[in-house]
Amino acid sequence: MTLRNAEDWLVLKRITRFGDTDAAGVIHFYNLFRWCHEAWEESLEKYGLYASDVFPDLWSGLDDQIVLPIIHCEADFRKPIKVGDHLEVKILPEKINISTFQVRTEFECEGEKVALGLIRHLAINSKTRNRCNLPDKINFWIEASSLGQGPRPL
Amino acid sequence: MTLRNAEDWLVLKRITRFGDTDAAGVIHFYNLFRWCHEAWEESLEKYGLYASDVFPDLWSGLDDQIVLPIIHCEADFRKPIKVGDHLEVKILPEKINISTFQVRTEFECEGEKVALGLIRHLAINSKTRNRCNLPDKINFWIEASSLGQGPRPL
Amino acid sequence: MTLRNAEDWLVLKRITRFGDTDAAGVIHFYNLFRWCHEAWEESLEKYGLYASDVFPDLWSGLDDQIVLPIIHCEADFRKPIKVGDHLEVKILPEKINISTFQVRTEFECEGEKVALGLIRHLAINSKTRNRCNLPDKINFWIEASSLGQGPRPL
Amino acid sequence: MTLRNAEDWLVLKRITRFGDTDAAGVIHFYNLFRWCHEAWEESLEKYGLYASDVFPDLWSGLDDQIVLPIIHCEADFRKPIKVGDHLEVKILPEKINISTFQVRTEFECEGEKVALGLIRHLAINSKTRNRCNLPDKINFWIEASSLGQGPRPL
Repeated sequence: MTLRNAEDWLVLKRITRFGDTDAAGVIHFYNLFRWCHEAWEESLEKYGLYASDVFPDLWSGLDDQIVLPIIHCEADFRKPIKVGDHLEVKILPEKINISTFQVRTEFECEGEKVALGLIRHLAINSKTRNRCNLPDKINFWIEASSLGQGPRPL
Repeated sequence: MTLRNAEDWLVLKRITRFGDTDAAGVIHFYNLFRWCHEAWEESLEKYGLYASDVFPDLWSGLDDQIVLPIIHCEADFRKPIKVGDHLEVKILPEKINISTFQVRTEFECEGEKVALGLIRHLAINSKTRNRCNLPDKINFWIEASSLGQGPRPL
Repeated sequence: MTLRNAEDWLVLKRITRFGDTDAAGVIHFYNLFRWCHEAWEESLEKYGLYASDVFPDLWSGLDDQIVLPIIHCEADFRKPIKVGDHLEVKILPEKINISTFQVRTEFECEGEKVALGLIRHLAINSKTRNRCNLPDKINFWIEASSLGQGPRPL
Repeated sequence: MTLRNAEDWLVLKRITRFGDTDAAGVIHFYNLFRWCHEAWEESLEKYGLYASDVFPDLWSGLDDQIVLPIIHCEADFRKPIKVGDHLEVKILPEKINISTFQVRTEFECEGEKVALGLIRHLAINSKTRNRCNLPDKINFWIEASSLGQGPRPL
């Protein structure tokens, strides 16, 4: 894997679409979590991982797969987000322990923070459903995200 | 299975929720398909089938499971549907051939048709992905739906 | 409004549908927030309020409407939730201050807590977008929810 | 508006995300309509229109706004679409009459058509809710889409 500018895979773009809104004329709240999860997937991909590295393919059998269920998530909404808004999406991954990590996602519009999301994942074995170590590829992605930002607790 | 009044499992209720709407103040269109599919699931359940009779459980392995992917769907929207609207949901199943069936769903509000949806399913074997006969339980549900309505082509 | 058994409007039912799941075979996480919000709407309705009492109708003009944007939400996921699961949904409203309230929602399956959601709303004036007092009807609903449970801080 | 290569705004990219799938391991069907609508919005934007040119802003009042409700939609699913699939998305707009247009959307993966969607819109006046002429900007976008493809019936 070649060294990349973190901006490429940790700072993304998103434009609010009409279907993201509700009858109050602004984003319907839980769509923010869809954005967070899709931003995470886009980040992994731009970093160099494949969906098949991270997401279970139940069609190919369950032996020895690691799955990463979400155990907690939260969001704060600071400003109304409207259709057509151009958002900057910053991804802030953090390892919590050997089997748990979380991704904080900050959404900015015209330089102002409009919303924050956080999603926490636990690694489990798809067969036993016991907790296990995070996949190496996720560890690498988390570690790479902290380079250039000074040391972070791992 | 005891004989049931078809009204119980072919005519359902639904109330439009705030998250179903978009910034135009009415239902965002594709949520109608979620309603159609959920109404189908509710109908199967009220008729006496379990989700595990109809939906694949990939966790339990793939051998000899029949899956029912959707090959076509369509909808017509006649009147705006707003938050809080109480809808009557009529399910009209129809067998097309030995491996295909469709479910038409009519939505009425205060006696007026407001929208129509249609979802067409094909039965395939989960392992080979070749088309196969519809599961017996789906056939029974389709046939039962036509009782009391005069003969229908099967 | 007649006195009602709180069980009727604070303890609801929900069945997981196929469209709620993802390729890991369990509920896709943010659908829990849709369930929380819909459960809140169902509770208001069973208590005796109309959607038009609570949700903005932008088509009728904006003057003096109170809107209740969500400022924070979070969820914990404890057990996998699968298609067909019959869930008991407990609504726990709480007033935080004169312009803010939150609704905690507990999901149980076969007597076990499987997930928890929380949604916090702020009351604002739809025209000025300044914070304002909660609507009386929401206050009544919150107060009624605490009856029979001993005193709660309001 | 400068002349643009139609490829830029009529042929788009999309990658299937995990939240688009269901427990059968493939895209949950109605998400295709979300993709179609978002592709339409992206096309308008890349062509040079703003969301505010096309979507109603109820907060700014309803006088003389044109809204474009969907009156019909349909989709065909030909191949399973899985998480991580890179799709090419072709937009094919068509004017039906002075107040109606539709957008056909073709999805290809590795050179094969995997799905087709179609969404039909009617132009109405937001206040009277009577049908009206399509907005000029939508007409221009539709006409521009046919340039370089030989004459099309308008």
